[in-house]
Amino acid sequence: MVIDKYNRRAEKVNSLVCVGLDSELAKLPERFKKLDHPQFEFNKWIIDNTAEFAAAFKINIAFYEQRGEQGLQELKMSMDYLRDKHPDIFTICDAKRGDIGNTNNGYVEEIFDWLGFDAVTLHPFMGRESLNPFLDRADKGCVILCRTSNPGAGELQDLVVQASGLPLWQVVAEKVRDDWNYNHNCMLVVGATYPEEIKRLRDIMGRTAFLVPGVGAQGGDVKAVVEAGLNDQKRGLIINSSRGIIFAENPALEAKKLRDEINLYR
Amino acid sequence: MVIDKYNRRAEKVNSLVCVGLDSELAKLPERFKKLDHPQFEFNKWIIDNTAEFAAAFKINIAFYEQRGEQGLQELKMSMDYLRDKHPDIFTICDAKRGDIGNTNNGYVEEIFDWLGFDAVTLHPFMGRESLNPFLDRADKGCVILCRTSNPGAGELQDLVVQASGLPLWQVVAEKVRDDWNYNHNCMLVVGATYPEEIKRLRDIMGRTAFLVPGVGAQGGDVKAVVEAGLNDQKRGLIINSSRGIIFAENPALEAKKLRDEINLYR
Repeated sequence: MVIDKYNRRAEKVNSLVCVGLDSELAKLPERFKKLDHPQFEFNKWIIDNTAEFAAAFKINIAFYEQRGEQGLQELKMSMDYLRDKHPDIFTICDAKRGDIGNTNNGYVEEIFDWLGFDAVTLHPFMGRESLNPFLDRADKGCVILCRTSNPGAGELQDLVVQASGLPLWQVVAEKVRDDWNYNHNCMLVVGATYPEEIKRLRDIMGRTAFLVPGVGAQGGDVKAVVEAGLNDQKRGLIINSSRGIIFAENPALEAKKLRDEINLYR
Repeated sequence: MVIDKYNRRAEKVNSLVCVGLDSELAKLPERFKKLDHPQFEFNKWIIDNTAEFAAAFKINIAFYEQRGEQGLQELKMSMDYLRDKHPDIFTICDAKRGDIGNTNNGYVEEIFDWLGFDAVTLHPFMGRESLNPFLDRADKGCVILCRTSNPGAGELQDLVVQASGLPLWQVVAEKVRDDWNYNHNCMLVVGATYPEEIKRLRDIMGRTAFLVPGVGAQGGDVKAVVEAGLNDQKRGLIINSSRGIIFAENPALEAKKLRDEINLYR
């Protein structure tokens, strides 16, 4: 299973930390901004400094597409560097994609084959059938948006569905569990800002891994997340921090601190 | 209002046709494949041949990202050509984006500012608050996925919401109408394969424009779409055909035929 790669790395470095390379050009330290490939050089520096504490890296593609073809080139360079230097680190493209079936093949080729990511985040709104090009790839992870970390997430996700009396986020989770996960390659996005939902999802999802954004800058509480979300193997969480690590004065120290804080409650 | 641009062009060429530049490299005629910029050269040819019948062009970005930075470069070249040659044609980036607020700024800059599209398609799943960076742009159109054209669309979109007894797609539409459309720049995606839903949406959405994919290759019926979806100004529909026009032997003829067929029922 694709999650085995994550689990092996998590054991090796004793960490459930995912470092988010949200390397927005405008926010980079000045010394990087003047280089030919500022986002790549910054990412290289972050990777070199934080990899020993990281089970995964997550790259949000929006911060690269923002710069057009040049950003996409630097994303490719960053992925090539990361995969060459640390082939055992689990990589997630935070792209939040979701189109009709044949069109999704374009994203499959871009994200899985050209960029070489292990997993991608996906919108569930168009149904399983639309996502088959992703779900069919048993060698790659499909991280389905379930309960997102943004303040307005509940507007649709908390709507109660008549047939089951359950909120939409839970209906999505149960569909993933019962029907979408036919290649054992599905995971869920669950925001760190909703520990009660994490607990409920753990109860119904078995060992399924959760990508948990929202600790650090977005205010999620590490203790609550870990206590609510660990599975019976003391794993099942991919806890992401982006700005809180990469824009800190000492990224290595912040990555280590997050790893240690998580492990304190494991 | 941003839709005025579409309406002016629709009047000028007496057409509600949107030509979809789903110019997947593998499907291009051989004479284009061997050129340095095959997707751009093909698009240029399609634009030159079909513009006189088109009120809008829609470009699905997946078919360009599929080729990485080179595809993105040819998308940019295509948009520069289209905007230079036909500045009055309405342009839609079919990107189906939707991330958290600050991250969406990356897509806003890419799609609206760098590529220069007039509108973008968006996922509603993370709520209005997440889409504010798009919705705040009164000069640009936000085309919200409501009832999509793919066979499995109903899996989530048809779920009945307890509070109102309405299907999720209608709940999304009413949210757009009552709350998300504060800049009068929202439209909806409604698949041509669901004329009953188009009729219902027209009844509740006033003059709001619908982007209707799914005629032609996906099997939607033009007569049913037009009769169900016109607003009181005999417009309100952006009827997209992609493969049915661009991969036809004579794209101009197919675009003209679609325009005339639509007008027959207007």
